[in-house]
Amino acid sequence: MGRKNWDLGVQRMEQLLSSLTDEQLLQEIVPGKNRGIYLVGHLLAHHDNLNTLLGLGPRLHPELDEAFMHHPDRSGLPMPAVRTLRQYWPEVHAHLASQFQQLTPAAWFSRHGTVSEEDFQREPFRNKLNMLLNRTSHISLHMGQLRLLT
Amino acid sequence: MGRKNWDLGVQRMEQLLSSLTDEQLLQEIVPGKNRGIYLVGHLLAHHDNLNTLLGLGPRLHPELDEAFMHHPDRSGLPMPAVRTLRQYWPEVHAHLASQFQQLTPAAWFSRHGTVSEEDFQREPFRNKLNMLLNRTSHISLHMGQLRLLT
Repeated sequence: MGRKNWDLGVQRMEQLLSSLTDEQLLQEIVPGKNRGIYLVGHLLAHHDNLNTLLGLGPRLHPELDEAFMHHPDRSGLPMPAVRTLRQYWPEVHAHLASQFQQLTPAAWFSRHGTVSEEDFQREPFRNKLNMLLNRTSHISLHMGQLRLLT
Repeated sequence: MGRKNWDLGVQRMEQLLSSLTDEQLLQEIVPGKNRGIYLVGHLLAHHDNLNTLLGLGPRLHPELDEAFMHHPDRSGLPMPAVRTLRQYWPEVHAHLASQFQQLTPAAWFSRHGTVSEEDFQREPFRNKLNMLLNRTSHISLHMGQLRLLT
Protein backbone atom coordinates (compact mmCIF):
# COMPACT_ATOMS: atom_id res chain seq x y z
CA MET A 1 0.00 0.00 0.00
CA GLY A 2 2.88 2.37 0.79
CA ARG A 3 4.52 1.50 -2.52
CA LYS A 4 1.24 1.84 -4.45
CA ASN A 5 0.59 5.31 -3.03
CA TRP A 6 4.16 6.35 -3.80
CA ASP A 7 3.81 5.13 -7.40
CA LEU A 8 0.51 6.99 -7.73
CA GLY A 9 2.08 10.24 -6.50
CA VAL A 10 5.04 9.86 -8.89
CA GLN A 11 2.70 9.15 -11.85
CA ARG A 12 0.42 12.08 -11.07
CA MET A 13 3.41 14.41 -10.87
CA GLU A 14 4.68 13.06 -14.19
CA GLN A 15 1.27 13.75 -15.80
CA LEU A 16 1.21 17.24 -14.32
CA LEU A 17 4.75 17.89 -15.61
CA SER A 18 3.69 16.85 -19.14
CA SER A 19 0.75 19.25 -18.99
CA LEU A 20 2.92 22.25 -18.02
CA THR A 21 5.03 24.15 -20.56
CA ASP A 22 8.65 25.16 -19.91
CA GLU A 23 7.44 28.77 -19.71
CA GLN A 24 4.90 27.90 -17.01
CA LEU A 25 7.54 26.02 -15.02
CA LEU A 26 9.79 29.09 -15.08
CA GLN A 27 7.09 31.19 -13.41
CA GLU A 28 6.66 31.75 -9.66
CA ILE A 29 3.65 29.91 -8.21
CA VAL A 30 2.67 33.19 -6.55
CA PRO A 31 4.75 36.38 -6.68
CA GLY A 32 7.81 36.11 -4.44
CA LYS A 33 7.45 32.34 -3.85
CA ASN A 34 9.19 29.35 -5.49
CA ARG A 35 9.19 28.86 -9.25
CA GLY A 36 7.88 25.63 -10.78
CA ILE A 37 11.39 24.59 -11.89
CA TYR A 38 12.61 24.83 -8.30
CA LEU A 39 9.85 22.59 -6.97
CA VAL A 40 10.50 19.96 -9.66
CA GLY A 41 14.25 19.99 -8.94
CA HIS A 42 13.53 19.92 -5.20
CA LEU A 43 11.39 16.79 -5.52
CA LEU A 44 13.98 15.14 -7.79
CA ALA A 45 16.84 15.88 -5.36
CA HIS A 46 14.88 14.50 -2.39
CA HIS A 47 13.81 11.40 -4.32
CA ASP A 48 17.28 10.71 -5.68
CA ASN A 49 18.56 11.05 -2.11
CA LEU A 50 16.28 8.18 -1.05
CA ASN A 51 18.93 5.88 -2.55
CA THR A 52 21.24 7.03 0.24
CA LEU A 53 18.72 7.30 3.08
CA LEU A 54 17.21 3.88 2.40
CA GLY A 55 20.63 2.28 1.86
CA LEU A 56 19.83 1.27 -1.73
CA GLY A 57 23.16 2.20 -3.32
CA PRO A 58 24.68 5.15 -5.20
CA ARG A 59 22.57 8.09 -6.32
CA LEU A 60 22.14 9.22 -9.91
CA HIS A 61 22.14 13.02 -9.46
CA PRO A 62 23.78 14.25 -6.23
CA GLU A 63 24.61 17.48 -8.12
CA LEU A 64 20.96 18.55 -7.69
CA ASP A 65 21.26 19.05 -3.92
CA GLU A 66 23.09 22.38 -3.90
CA ALA A 67 20.56 24.35 -5.92
CA PHE A 68 17.39 22.45 -4.99
CA MET A 69 17.83 21.17 -1.43
CA HIS A 70 20.51 23.18 0.38
CA HIS A 71 19.47 26.58 -0.97
CA PRO A 72 16.19 28.38 -1.68
CA ASP A 73 15.05 29.33 -5.17
CA ARG A 74 16.93 32.14 -6.96
CA SER A 75 20.15 31.43 -5.02
CA GLY A 76 22.11 32.19 -8.18
CA LEU A 77 23.45 28.62 -8.22
CA PRO A 78 23.42 26.92 -11.64
CA MET A 79 20.33 24.83 -12.40
CA PRO A 80 19.76 22.27 -15.17
CA ALA A 81 17.34 23.32 -17.92
CA VAL A 82 13.67 22.39 -17.50
CA ARG A 83 14.00 19.87 -20.35
CA THR A 84 16.84 18.16 -18.46
CA LEU A 85 14.73 17.88 -15.29
CA ARG A 86 11.91 16.43 -17.41
CA GLN A 87 14.32 13.71 -18.55
CA TYR A 88 15.51 13.05 -15.01
CA TRP A 89 11.98 12.46 -13.68
CA PRO A 90 11.33 9.02 -15.28
CA GLU A 91 15.01 8.08 -14.97
CA VAL A 92 15.24 8.72 -11.21
CA HIS A 93 11.93 7.01 -10.50
CA ALA A 94 12.55 3.95 -12.68
CA HIS A 95 15.87 3.52 -10.87
CA LEU A 96 14.20 3.82 -7.46
CA ALA A 97 11.44 1.36 -8.44
CA SER A 98 14.09 -1.15 -9.42
CA GLN A 99 16.01 -0.59 -6.15
CA PHE A 100 12.81 -0.93 -4.09
CA GLN A 101 12.43 -4.47 -5.47
CA GLN A 102 15.50 -5.43 -3.45
CA LEU A 103 13.89 -4.49 -0.15
CA THR A 104 12.16 -7.33 1.70
CA PRO A 105 9.08 -6.52 3.82
CA ALA A 106 11.31 -6.80 6.92
CA ALA A 107 13.80 -4.33 5.43
CA TRP A 108 11.02 -1.75 4.95
CA PHE A 109 10.48 -1.88 8.72
CA SER A 110 14.17 -1.36 9.47
CA ARG A 111 15.83 1.92 10.42
CA HIS A 112 16.44 4.59 7.78
CA GLY A 113 19.55 6.73 7.40
CA THR A 114 18.56 9.82 9.39
CA VAL A 115 17.71 8.10 12.67
CA SER A 116 20.29 6.74 15.14
CA GLU A 117 20.20 3.15 16.38
CA GLU A 118 19.36 4.49 19.85
CA ASP A 119 16.45 6.68 18.70
CA PHE A 120 15.15 3.85 16.56
CA GLN A 121 14.93 1.58 19.61
CA ARG A 122 12.65 4.17 21.21
CA GLU A 123 10.73 5.08 18.03
CA PRO A 124 10.59 1.99 15.81
CA PHE A 125 8.09 3.68 13.45
CA ARG A 126 10.99 5.75 12.09
CA ASN A 127 11.63 3.08 9.50
CA LYS A 128 12.13 2.99 5.74
CA LEU A 129 8.43 2.56 4.98
CA ASN A 130 7.62 5.61 7.08
CA MET A 131 10.14 7.63 5.11
CA LEU A 132 8.37 6.57 1.90
CA LEU A 133 4.99 7.63 3.39
CA ASN A 134 6.49 11.03 4.31
CA ARG A 135 7.99 11.50 0.87
CA THR A 136 4.62 10.59 -0.70
CA SER A 137 2.94 13.39 1.28
CA HIS A 138 5.82 15.67 0.28
CA ILE A 139 4.99 15.05 -3.40
CA SER A 140 1.36 16.05 -2.72
CA LEU A 141 2.46 19.21 -0.90
CA HIS A 142 4.35 20.53 -3.92
CA MET A 143 2.00 19.02 -6.52
CA GLY A 144 -0.78 21.12 -5.00
CA GLN A 145 1.38 24.19 -5.61
CA LEU A 146 2.48 23.20 -9.13
CA ARG A 147 -1.18 22.64 -10.11
CA LEU A 148 -1.74 26.37 -9.60
CA LEU A 149 0.45 27.02 -12.67
CA THR A 150 -2.16 25.37 -14.95
CA MET B 1 2.45 4.68 11.23
CA GLY B 2 -0.63 5.53 9.15
CA ARG B 3 -2.31 7.05 12.20
CA LYS B 4 0.84 8.95 13.21
CA ASN B 5 1.19 10.52 9.76
CA TRP B 6 -2.49 11.44 9.75
CA ASP B 7 -2.17 13.09 13.18
CA LEU B 8 0.91 14.98 11.98
CA GLY B 9 -0.92 16.30 8.90
CA VAL B 10 -3.92 17.37 11.01
CA GLN B 11 -1.64 19.14 13.54
CA ARG B 12 0.37 20.93 10.86
CA MET B 13 -2.83 22.17 9.22
CA GLU B 14 -4.09 23.38 12.61
CA GLN B 15 -0.85 25.32 13.15
CA LEU B 16 -1.08 26.80 9.67
CA LEU B 17 -4.72 27.81 10.29
CA SER B 18 -3.70 29.61 13.51
CA SER B 19 -1.02 31.52 11.62
CA LEU B 20 -3.44 32.77 8.93
CA THR B 21 -5.84 35.68 9.53
CA ASP B 22 -9.51 35.59 8.51
CA GLU B 23 -8.66 38.16 5.82
CA GLN B 24 -5.93 35.91 4.39
CA LEU B 25 -8.29 32.92 4.35
CA LEU B 26 -10.84 34.93 2.38
CA GLN B 27 -8.29 35.54 -0.39
CA GLU B 28 -7.78 33.40 -3.50
CA ILE B 29 -4.54 31.38 -3.39
CA VAL B 30 -3.82 32.67 -6.90
CA PRO B 31 -6.22 34.82 -8.95
CA GLY B 32 -9.15 32.76 -10.24
CA LYS B 33 -8.39 29.70 -8.06
CA ASN B 34 -9.87 28.54 -4.75
CA ARG B 35 -9.97 30.78 -1.69
CA GLY B 36 -8.42 29.67 1.60
CA ILE B 37 -11.84 29.35 3.26
CA TYR B 38 -12.94 26.91 0.56
CA LEU B 39 -9.91 24.66 1.04
CA VAL B 40 -10.40 24.58 4.82
CA GLY B 41 -14.09 23.73 4.44
CA HIS B 42 -13.24 21.17 1.75
CA LEU B 43 -10.79 19.35 4.05
CA LEU B 44 -13.29 19.48 6.95
CA ALA B 45 -16.12 18.06 4.80
CA HIS B 46 -13.92 15.21 3.54
CA HIS B 47 -12.60 14.43 7.03
CA ASP B 48 -16.04 14.52 8.63
CA ASN B 49 -17.21 12.18 5.86
CA LEU B 50 -14.60 9.62 7.00
CA ASN B 51 -17.06 8.74 9.78
CA THR B 52 -19.38 7.40 7.08
CA LEU B 53 -16.78 5.89 4.73
CA LEU B 54 -14.95 4.08 7.52
CA GLY B 55 -18.21 2.96 9.16
CA LEU B 56 -17.47 4.80 12.41
CA GLY B 57 -20.94 6.22 13.05
CA PRO B 58 -22.83 9.47 12.45
CA ARG B 59 -21.06 12.57 11.13
CA LEU B 60 -20.90 15.90 12.91
CA HIS B 61 -21.27 18.30 9.96
CA PRO B 62 -22.89 16.78 6.86
CA GLU B 63 -24.12 20.30 6.00
CA LEU B 64 -20.58 21.15 4.81
CA ASP B 65 -20.78 18.87 1.75
CA GLU B 66 -22.95 21.06 -0.49
CA ALA B 67 -20.70 24.12 -0.50
CA PHE B 68 -17.32 22.43 0.01
CA MET B 69 -17.48 19.00 -1.65
CA HIS B 70 -20.29 18.94 -4.25
CA HIS B 71 -19.64 22.40 -5.65
CA PRO B 72 -16.59 24.50 -6.51
CA ASP B 73 -15.69 27.72 -4.71
CA ARG B 74 -17.93 30.79 -5.31
CA SER B 75 -20.97 28.61 -6.07
CA GLY B 76 -23.13 31.14 -4.25
CA LEU B 77 -24.12 28.50 -1.68
CA PRO B 78 -24.03 29.64 1.97
CA MET B 79 -20.77 28.97 3.83
CA PRO B 80 -20.06 29.11 7.57
CA ALA B 81 -17.88 32.01 8.73
CA VAL B 82 -14.11 31.44 8.93
CA ARG B 83 -14.30 31.58 12.72
CA THR B 84 -16.87 28.76 12.66
CA LEU B 85 -14.62 26.57 10.49
CA ARG B 86 -11.76 27.29 12.89
CA GLN B 87 -13.93 25.88 15.71
CA TYR B 88 -14.91 22.84 13.66
CA TRP B 89 -11.27 21.85 12.97
CA PRO B 90 -10.35 20.55 16.48
CA GLU B 91 -13.89 19.30 17.06
CA VAL B 92 -14.04 17.14 13.91
CA HIS B 93 -10.54 15.75 14.45
CA ALA B 94 -10.94 15.00 18.16
CA HIS B 95 -14.12 13.12 17.29
CA LEU B 96 -12.34 11.15 14.56
CA ALA B 97 -9.41 10.34 16.85
CA SER B 98 -11.81 8.95 19.41
CA GLN B 99 -13.64 6.90 16.74
CA PHE B 100 -10.33 5.58 15.35
CA GLN B 101 -9.65 4.04 18.78
CA GLN B 102 -12.52 1.63 18.14
CA LEU B 103 -10.89 0.17 15.03
CA THR B 104 -8.82 -2.95 15.58
CA PRO B 105 -5.75 -3.54 13.35
CA ALA B 106 -7.82 -6.11 11.41
CA ALA B 107 -10.61 -3.55 10.89
CA TRP B 108 -8.13 -1.09 9.33
CA PHE B 109 -7.42 -3.74 6.68
CA SER B 110 -11.11 -4.27 5.93
CA ARG B 111 -13.05 -2.74 3.05
CA HIS B 112 -14.03 0.94 3.13
CA GLY B 113 -17.37 2.42 2.06
CA THR B 114 -16.61 3.33 -1.56
CA VAL B 115 -15.45 -0.09 -2.78
CA SER B 116 -17.80 -3.01 -3.48
CA GLU B 117 -17.31 -6.44 -1.90
CA GLU B 118 -16.47 -7.80 -5.37
CA ASP B 119 -13.86 -5.14 -6.18
CA PHE B 120 -12.35 -5.56 -2.73
CA GLN B 121 -11.78 -9.27 -3.36
CA ARG B 122 -9.72 -8.30 -6.41
CA GLU B 123 -8.02 -5.25 -4.83
CA PRO B 124 -7.65 -5.90 -1.10
CA PHE B 125 -5.43 -2.82 -0.67
CA ARG B 126 -8.58 -0.68 -1.00
CA ASN B 127 -9.05 -0.86 2.75
CA LYS B 128 -9.69 1.64 5.54
CA LEU B 129 -5.99 2.22 6.22
CA ASN B 130 -5.40 3.02 2.55
CA MET B 131 -8.20 5.58 2.68
CA LEU B 132 -6.46 7.22 5.66
CA LEU B 133 -3.16 7.29 3.72
CA ASN B 134 -4.95 8.92 0.77
CA ARG B 135 -6.63 11.49 2.98
CA THR B 136 -3.25 12.28 4.59
CA SER B 137 -1.78 13.07 1.16
CA HIS B 138 -4.92 15.11 0.42
CA ILE B 139 -4.17 17.29 3.48
CA SER B 140 -0.64 17.89 2.14
CA LEU B 141 -1.97 18.79 -1.32
CA HIS B 142 -4.12 21.63 0.02
CA MET B 143 -1.73 22.59 2.86
CA GLY B 144 0.89 23.31 0.18
CA GLN B 145 -1.60 25.71 -1.40
CA LEU B 146 -2.73 27.33 1.86
CA ARG B 147 0.91 27.97 2.80
CA LEU B 148 1.12 30.33 -0.17
CA LEU B 149 -1.24 32.71 1.68
CA THR B 150 1.42 33.39 4.37
